[in-house]
Amino acid sequence: MIHFECDYTEGCHLAILEKLAETNEEQTSGYGLDPHCDHARAIIRSLCKAPGADVHFLVGGTQTNTTVIASVLRPYQGALCAVTGHINVHETGAIEATGHKVLPLKSTDGKITAAQIQETYDAHYHDSEHEHTVQPGMVYISQSTENGTIYSKEELQNISETCRKCGLPLFLDGARLGYALASPKNDLTMADISRLCDVFYIGGTKVGALFGEAVVITNPDLKPDFRYMIKQRGGMLAKGRLLGIQFETLLEGGEDNLYSQISKHALDLALKLKEAFLKKGYRLLFDSFTNQQYPILPDTVVDELSKSFTFSTWSKVDDTHTAIRICTSWATKPEAVDSLIDHL
Amino acid sequence: MIHFECDYTEGCHLAILEKLAETNEEQTSGYGLDPHCDHARAIIRSLCKAPGADVHFLVGGTQTNTTVIASVLRPYQGALCAVTGHINVHETGAIEATGHKVLPLKSTDGKITAAQIQETYDAHYHDSEHEHTVQPGMVYISQSTENGTIYSKEELQNISETCRKCGLPLFLDGARLGYALASPKNDLTMADISRLCDVFYIGGTKVGALFGEAVVITNPDLKPDFRYMIKQRGGMLAKGRLLGIQFETLLEGGEDNLYSQISKHALDLALKLKEAFLKKGYRLLFDSFTNQQYPILPDTVVDELSKSFTFSTWSKVDDTHTAIRICTSWATKPEAVDSLIDHL
Amino acid sequence: MIHFECDYTEGCHLAILEKLAETNEEQTSGYGLDPHCDHARAIIRSLCKAPGADVHFLVGGTQTNTTVIASVLRPYQGALCAVTGHINVHETGAIEATGHKVLPLKSTDGKITAAQIQETYDAHYHDSEHEHTVQPGMVYISQSTENGTIYSKEELQNISETCRKCGLPLFLDGARLGYALASPKNDLTMADISRLCDVFYIGGTKVGALFGEAVVITNPDLKPDFRYMIKQRGGMLAKGRLLGIQFETLLEGGEDNLYSQISKHALDLALKLKEAFLKKGYRLLFDSFTNQQYPILPDTVVDELSKSFTFSTWSKVDDTHTAIRICTSWATKPEAVDSLIDHL
Amino acid sequence: MIHFECDYTEGCHLAILEKLAETNEEQTSGYGLDPHCDHARAIIRSLCKAPGADVHFLVGGTQTNTTVIASVLRPYQGALCAVTGHINVHETGAIEATGHKVLPLKSTDGKITAAQIQETYDAHYHDSEHEHTVQPGMVYISQSTENGTIYSKEELQNISETCRKCGLPLFLDGARLGYALASPKNDLTMADISRLCDVFYIGGTKVGALFGEAVVITNPDLKPDFRYMIKQRGGMLAKGRLLGIQFETLLEGGEDNLYSQISKHALDLALKLKEAFLKKGYRLLFDSFTNQQYPILPDTVVDELSKSFTFSTWSKVDDTHTAIRICTSWATKPEAVDSLIDHL
Repeated sequence: MIHFECDYTEGCHLAILEKLAETNEEQTSGYGLDPHCDHARAIIRSLCKAPGADVHFLVGGTQTNTTVIASVLRPYQGALCAVTGHINVHETGAIEATGHKVLPLKSTDGKITAAQIQETYDAHYHDSEHEHTVQPGMVYISQSTENGTIYSKEELQNISETCRKCGLPLFLDGARLGYALASPKNDLTMADISRLCDVFYIGGTKVGALFGEAVVITNPDLKPDFRYMIKQRGGMLAKGRLLGIQFETLLEGGEDNLYSQISKHALDLALKLKEAFLKKGYRLLFDSFTNQQYPILPDTVVDELSKSFTFSTWSKVDDTHTAIRICTSWATKPEAVDSLIDHL
Repeated sequence: MIHFECDYTEGCHLAILEKLAETNEEQTSGYGLDPHCDHARAIIRSLCKAPGADVHFLVGGTQTNTTVIASVLRPYQGALCAVTGHINVHETGAIEATGHKVLPLKSTDGKITAAQIQETYDAHYHDSEHEHTVQPGMVYISQSTENGTIYSKEELQNISETCRKCGLPLFLDGARLGYALASPKNDLTMADISRLCDVFYIGGTKVGALFGEAVVITNPDLKPDFRYMIKQRGGMLAKGRLLGIQFETLLEGGEDNLYSQISKHALDLALKLKEAFLKKGYRLLFDSFTNQQYPILPDTVVDELSKSFTFSTWSKVDDTHTAIRICTSWATKPEAVDSLIDHL
Repeated sequence: MIHFECDYTEGCHLAILEKLAETNEEQTSGYGLDPHCDHARAIIRSLCKAPGADVHFLVGGTQTNTTVIASVLRPYQGALCAVTGHINVHETGAIEATGHKVLPLKSTDGKITAAQIQETYDAHYHDSEHEHTVQPGMVYISQSTENGTIYSKEELQNISETCRKCGLPLFLDGARLGYALASPKNDLTMADISRLCDVFYIGGTKVGALFGEAVVITNPDLKPDFRYMIKQRGGMLAKGRLLGIQFETLLEGGEDNLYSQISKHALDLALKLKEAFLKKGYRLLFDSFTNQQYPILPDTVVDELSKSFTFSTWSKVDDTHTAIRICTSWATKPEAVDSLIDHL
Repeated sequence: MIHFECDYTEGCHLAILEKLAETNEEQTSGYGLDPHCDHARAIIRSLCKAPGADVHFLVGGTQTNTTVIASVLRPYQGALCAVTGHINVHETGAIEATGHKVLPLKSTDGKITAAQIQETYDAHYHDSEHEHTVQPGMVYISQSTENGTIYSKEELQNISETCRKCGLPLFLDGARLGYALASPKNDLTMADISRLCDVFYIGGTKVGALFGEAVVITNPDLKPDFRYMIKQRGGMLAKGRLLGIQFETLLEGGEDNLYSQISKHALDLALKLKEAFLKKGYRLLFDSFTNQQYPILPDTVVDELSKSFTFSTWSKVDDTHTAIRICTSWATKPEAVDSLIDHL
């Protein structure tokens, strides 16, 4: 079986394994207070053109979302997000477990708009009994989204502007940020994102690391005491340097670092697949230009493919067709993609 | 500087790095549903002589304590533990953040007794307004404790018996279980612990792994839906196999596995240090037979040592003496210990 | 100004004030452990034909919903409810503040169906990664609903059956139960509700009491330790007898007790208003047969009425029409209704 | 049986019942937005000489403590309080249920000192791993305390000064504030308390009201959005005017209002009892000058008294003696006190 079910089926990029081996006997302080983490922080600040940003390393996505959101919100506030957002559907209520409601906004492709945010904000304060409802406290978006789509620079600027006008911190979940940045449709840099968001993270788990998410906090109001939050939410890795080492390896070397190279690799293969699906006349559930592709296939084809490949069945489209999700990643072998295309 | 400040200053045992490299390109399902995790589970069940136990792998100690305790307790219940217990003092209120009070019991050496548990339980129900106070819901102990001490088999049996009589699940935090089992004073096996506790964990982070704690649930009432809890509390590692691989490596091979060998290594060096302190006429804050040693040193000696070694200052004992904590680990070099002894 | 904005604009029924005065100097134990509460419990058990039910008295609706739901659910579970349900929209995230997600089901009239519950339940367990999503843990419905509609006996039986099949406790919010029972369309008795639900409450605040909600727990699994929950959630009134006294007064005397008499009074006036709206040719947003009426009026009429009457503007229906909500209650004066009709 | 077990065994002062009857048919808006609440707010601001204070009315003590503390603290912060404090022992973990640890300070008489607060604060920040421990976030004290003792003006000034230096909001639980202010040993006015604390409450439940606590927030940082907190925590009474009416009745009329008159009544009787115990040669567990008295009696006397009177057994002092708690209140009849003295 060849796995296309997600972007975390393999271990990590070899360069990381080598660096782990090379540094293994070093003695360092724990909890992220070591030279590797400091070095990785410096690299990230530089990539983000945000010399004053705070950078923290956490282990996984749900943990990161929970820690950031619980840190930003007051008890009676909620996080606006697309109804399809990861925090709304795939984190077993982790946000609610910190006491906060997720406030879902309609979305067909995984994205939300500045106008939706403004409307929700206005509707809240227009209600004379607004104290009886959850106060919008922040906005959560993901880039790329859970549907493979990405925000353009203009869209993100609009969202950012609205958020600032309304006093709503903007948080971007970058679990798949590498794949968004590498997209041919992308016109955003990491520095843009850093400037337009109040806090965001650079995902490692799905882009070549064993694990790890690098949180970048640019809004000074959100910086104090974030390490307490990490510790309380179980995210402070004892051997924190493991995170520093991985992000050093992925991110050093400027714009053309390992992170962007391997993201590009995944994208090339994903778009090759997309083209193949289109060529065969299949429609797509979402017009994705990132590493997640959503072809709509006849059920017979789905059955046939599932004998040799793993993937997610996304939704039943009609009586005889199903949309599936196929993920490529930094680790996907070109032969695997060729084999899938052959099977089509 | 030579680090004795804790037992997580290095990476991991080389055998783990090798196994990670060897398996790196394998494609597996995520979230702990892979053959390595399954194999590690089988090894653990066998070591514990608990064929029906549920075994889960989490990343770190605070995360594990939080997940287990939040899973066991009803909302109005608290966890009894030594006032010095990790959950009471060093987890930034992570347990309280799940809604539960920690109910501290007096302790001078890190241990609690069956009698204390019984008294607290009786006092609660004797109070005619007991509904106005937090109900004892479980018991948390650590082995070895935060003070380097260990429970004997008799002590653990008594605690277990009392807990079962009172209907209080017993949870043993085994972050340093390896070092407890390797102690010359130890008379407990992993199977004993498994039998006497309702849930416990085998610590990897401090005993040779990059990270990882293996939770063993033997009480059937505590098994259902634990994976939901792991996910909600941010502890479900995407590349879960990393945990399986580490525990496979540490625990396979029966009683004399790598885990016990490297624990023994740490113990030998710790006890060598202990002997050296005693020989020099220094007293000990706690009479520890594990990898944490607590000599009481003249402040001048503390100052002198701190030029070449890192360690924790534990408490001021009198005007001119301070108790420090020195940790050895699986990774401690014999030369480092010799050097410290020389400096004395 | 005449108030029709809600059903809690006055104090309480005179009989309650008299009983409070009459009992004022009695000395009783606090916290609901007094003869008045016991007497009220007996009356309620008898009305419900549920001799084994546990009955508790709380102060308000949000408090009651929060206490019941937090008591029923495991940490990773959520409560299914209509998207319009009070717990989903008008409690400032009180349920989420206890750690639980509200799982909203589509609804146009405030009601949900057995089929929706079954589908949601099935969809959850059909998902191979169900542990990544909130587990359905109970069902919340309200009678009458936030839109004035009521469940018929058949509908409630179907829901109850589905809930029992799925192992989902059914909780009925009866903040306006009196007005539901008094509806000409109602075919349910309090005993039916008691039998078909696992826990429900009889609302006092909106039906003649100063405050107070009587929780009836019939499912034995949900009974233990509920008083701890009440205390923890701030709902244990020191002078608990105030609640007992009010429910005694409202509920004693069998089926034709004060509670049903004053509910009927509210209904007669509400339906008189409804008829007047229909006669004038106005449409209704919801076809309500309870004390909340939702006429769709020309904006000019709304403006005119709002000079003499208070009511809620519910939703903009089109450019020139608005749906409003008008509430009658136990305290509404017939003259007030006549005056409103005259103004039309 | 004559009840001395607590200060909430009767209903309320007759003047309140009369005012409730008199206003019963008024139609007002709900949720504390009515003329009676506004009037009560004005009275309280005037008594406190705090024209800018925010005043909110809640129903009970645990609810009030929980709402205030959850509003003040960041997620990783805890509330310092005497180990005997109500929030630490008698609220079923309500504070922890909001996610916060209670940080208990040693106390023998129910009070804590400025020095203890300073030490705890310093110790926290002195710890290089302070992020691993709960951050002190506020200070909770009660006046009078759970042991009947009161803070002097000097003591409260010192605490206030220390709190302000450390940036720790000071919260005073005034469930029994009336009895503290009426004490012959008291040298604090309501205006002093208002000036020295950041938030406090004037207790109604135990001092003549049916129920109700009036929260006074003077620190502007703690004011925003408090009504959201009240609603979320289930404390927003639908018929909020009931609270306004009660506090109007108790507090209007300046310094010599009903609240202080009836508190004085309770004090006179309590001190008469105290004198009687001392005259009989009995010692006191705490030297209280408020309405709670703690005589240490021979067990035979305790047994004898308990045939005719209810009271709390506080603690076993030695093999033959027990400390009991006797409460007087606004409602205590002089004959009841005389009868108790006769029985001695």
